[in-house]
Amino acid sequence: MATPASRNPSFVTATKRLASSLSSARGRDAVRLLPSYLADARSVVRYSPEHPQGALQLGVAESLLLEDWLVPALNRPVSIPANAIYYQPTQGRADFIDTMATYIEDLLQLQPLRLKRENLVLGAGCNAVLENLCFTLAEAGESVLLPTPYYAAFEFDLVARAGLRVEPVTTHAYHPTKQQNDAQIYFPNTAALNAAYERCLQQQSTPKILLLSHPHNPLGICYPPSVVQECIQWCRERQIHLISDEIYAGSVYGETFVSALQLADRHDQGLGPYVHWVYALSKDFALSGLRVGAAYTENEEIVLPLQKLNDLCCISSTTQLWTKMILEHEMEGGESWVHAFRRMNHSRLAQRSAQLTAVLDEFRIPYLTPTAGLFVWIDLSRYLPSDSHLTPSEQERKLYLELVHTYGLLLTPGLSMKNEQPGFFRCVFTAATEEEFALSLQRLRTFAKEKS
Amino acid sequence: MATPASRNPSFVTATKRLASSLSSARGRDAVRLLPSYLADARSVVRYSPEHPQGALQLGVAESLLLEDWLVPALNRPVSIPANAIYYQPTQGRADFIDTMATYIEDLLQLQPLRLKRENLVLGAGCNAVLENLCFTLAEAGESVLLPTPYYAAFEFDLVARAGLRVEPVTTHAYHPTKQQNDAQIYFPNTAALNAAYERCLQQQSTPKILLLSHPHNPLGICYPPSVVQECIQWCRERQIHLISDEIYAGSVYGETFVSALQLADRHDQGLGPYVHWVYALSKDFALSGLRVGAAYTENEEIVLPLQKLNDLCCISSTTQLWTKMILEHEMEGGESWVHAFRRMNHSRLAQRSAQLTAVLDEFRIPYLTPTAGLFVWIDLSRYLPSDSHLTPSEQERKLYLELVHTYGLLLTPGLSMKNEQPGFFRCVFTAATEEEFALSLQRLRTFAKEKS
Repeated sequence: MATPASRNPSFVTATKRLASSLSSARGRDAVRLLPSYLADARSVVRYSPEHPQGALQLGVAESLLLEDWLVPALNRPVSIPANAIYYQPTQGRADFIDTMATYIEDLLQLQPLRLKRENLVLGAGCNAVLENLCFTLAEAGESVLLPTPYYAAFEFDLVARAGLRVEPVTTHAYHPTKQQNDAQIYFPNTAALNAAYERCLQQQSTPKILLLSHPHNPLGICYPPSVVQECIQWCRERQIHLISDEIYAGSVYGETFVSALQLADRHDQGLGPYVHWVYALSKDFALSGLRVGAAYTENEEIVLPLQKLNDLCCISSTTQLWTKMILEHEMEGGESWVHAFRRMNHSRLAQRSAQLTAVLDEFRIPYLTPTAGLFVWIDLSRYLPSDSHLTPSEQERKLYLELVHTYGLLLTPGLSMKNEQPGFFRCVFTAATEEEFALSLQRLRTFAKEKS
Repeated sequence: MATPASRNPSFVTATKRLASSLSSARGRDAVRLLPSYLADARSVVRYSPEHPQGALQLGVAESLLLEDWLVPALNRPVSIPANAIYYQPTQGRADFIDTMATYIEDLLQLQPLRLKRENLVLGAGCNAVLENLCFTLAEAGESVLLPTPYYAAFEFDLVARAGLRVEPVTTHAYHPTKQQNDAQIYFPNTAALNAAYERCLQQQSTPKILLLSHPHNPLGICYPPSVVQECIQWCRERQIHLISDEIYAGSVYGETFVSALQLADRHDQGLGPYVHWVYALSKDFALSGLRVGAAYTENEEIVLPLQKLNDLCCISSTTQLWTKMILEHEMEGGESWVHAFRRMNHSRLAQRSAQLTAVLDEFRIPYLTPTAGLFVWIDLSRYLPSDSHLTPSEQERKLYLELVHTYGLLLTPGLSMKNEQPGFFRCVFTAATEEEFALSLQRLRTFAKEKS
């Protein structure tokens, strides 16, 4: 287990705090929390008709597949009433909260009216509501447990202003299988969580939150219900807060999704104070530009703090009206636009995903069978350079740069997401146009051929 | 000077931090930072046709005077391009930044293209960009100097998440006049700032920021250029950051406004690293529901941190497009809609203001001659109860509750804004309809008659 991530679980290294009257160290540190591999990517010439040799974007978790549905939907007229001019309830307009709650109940297959409207807080993006949720649950310096690999920007969202500490939860050692491409090896279980818990205590930091990405980014799968159930039970016993980030809940195209809200619901007692949920429209609707996020909790101690802190990240009233209109729209014939949209989206996701995995199969490149999200988790470790003087991190970086510069493929390197082993990459299959995606597959073939 | 504010400048009292696994102390503390007099107001029955005896709203700094212009403007069609769907530059869309910069240059009478576009950051409200600006300038525990009286919600914005300490800058002792209704007595000068600076050091807190509200909330006036100039000079000498909050810059109806950006500009050297500026559309356009705030700095060390932190409070892309359309709209005949709107707004503000001060004059109630903002700063200290066993704070609260319960008038009590003397109130003259405003004046007359 002597991999970089497990050797050094506390990755937020202390940066040298230069005394300066011009700026704060915490402001400068915030910038350093952003993934450094992005800096490599910024200078790369991108593909365009003028730069046919430019790099293709397979790294950003966005979907370009939905414009034909979204642009007309966004351009439908919305009537703006006078009351939209003024200060709104910080957590969202009452009617929009109801619309969102109804949408979420449908999405997660909860009972209608299961969600308490007064416990739903709508803010400007998943990152914004997640930060506030964590702020109300944990003090600065306390730890958030994050199973690896994980969405790299969590480090920014949790550390930059909320001052939390991230404790990666490594999982490989706690499963009998050693197959890197068996999804099970990535599942957090009681033993893995206990070990992470102990590491926090050794660092004099109180473990306070377990943050699950479910469906999982970057793995492209959902956790099986038994895994989520085990996490819920562990959290309740340890009095740790479980936050289920279900931002891809509407992008599950290859299995049936079971939300943590379903699994945690004990009917008579509800979710209880230790299970929380966040979501946004940025992935399932690709509407990242609209900044519509949601947090739900039945922990009554934090509802008022959450609502008040939300004043610092409110959603524009007109965006609330607009989103309400989109979510409630009916097609000719009366079908819900959202249902038709989701069906179409699932079919397009499945198609792109299948195109990508067909190429991987062709070259026997291992991957986790994708069922959710906009990406596939690919094992390119066999292509790592064998230079024995390189660290695993340097090996992966070399392969990453080779993919970018020699093959024009921009993927997300696994170690940037604290994966336990080098050589794994997240490949987003939705951020390219049809033409670009076809070219990506062609380049991937070239890579595999030349490297084998 | 033995007034509550000066006796106890460090108003953020330590709250008892109960150990709880259910929520964080900092989340619970955030709620306590909200002004407590609002809790009194919440339970009060408000005026409505069904409750003609209900209390009239003269406390919230909103303007209802502009709906006839704003509702049609908000309902003009906006074309949403496909690129609005996706993640935007965190600081705002390039074309919207340019529109806002042009608008600000016009508003503040700066040279066209004076503002560096890359130094302007647009976020979801003045509170959101102010918090981030302070975060990039000062560490947790460092102090923000705030001349008294001040907008009470600054305490929430600066303390709740950014963890700053607020040091009220009392001013009365540092002026020869002792006339409470001579505006001069409220002006921060070098002696007042030096004293506040020393108080911070005594509290082991580094003074780092001076935050000016200019035009001033709650005083309803602009600081004279010489006062702002003295503050700028003091800040530069002390290496303290001056932030000029000019959210009412477009609501100056009784004098000529001179922005800190004009006064601080040293042409060849620009603003330098110690002068910063915040603004929003919430007051001058009454568009508080749209959450459009702006921060400007020429301190290059904080530009990137500000842009990155802004990811946690981005403005919806559609709101950016909408606002751009409104700011660039031309009337029939080619006049700028913004210019016509501002002229109309100034005339309505002047009219309401004159109606209110006429009643005050009638009863010889002292006030600061208002020239800016949505309110008048009124001296009702002669009506304070004379019970000698009451503290000044209890006296003011008694008068406040009498105004609410006996006379149906909801004003903002001065001590909630850390005024140095009890008995002063901010009276907002724009948050009532025509009918309600007429009734407010009538009730104010009744109050003055019965109390004299």
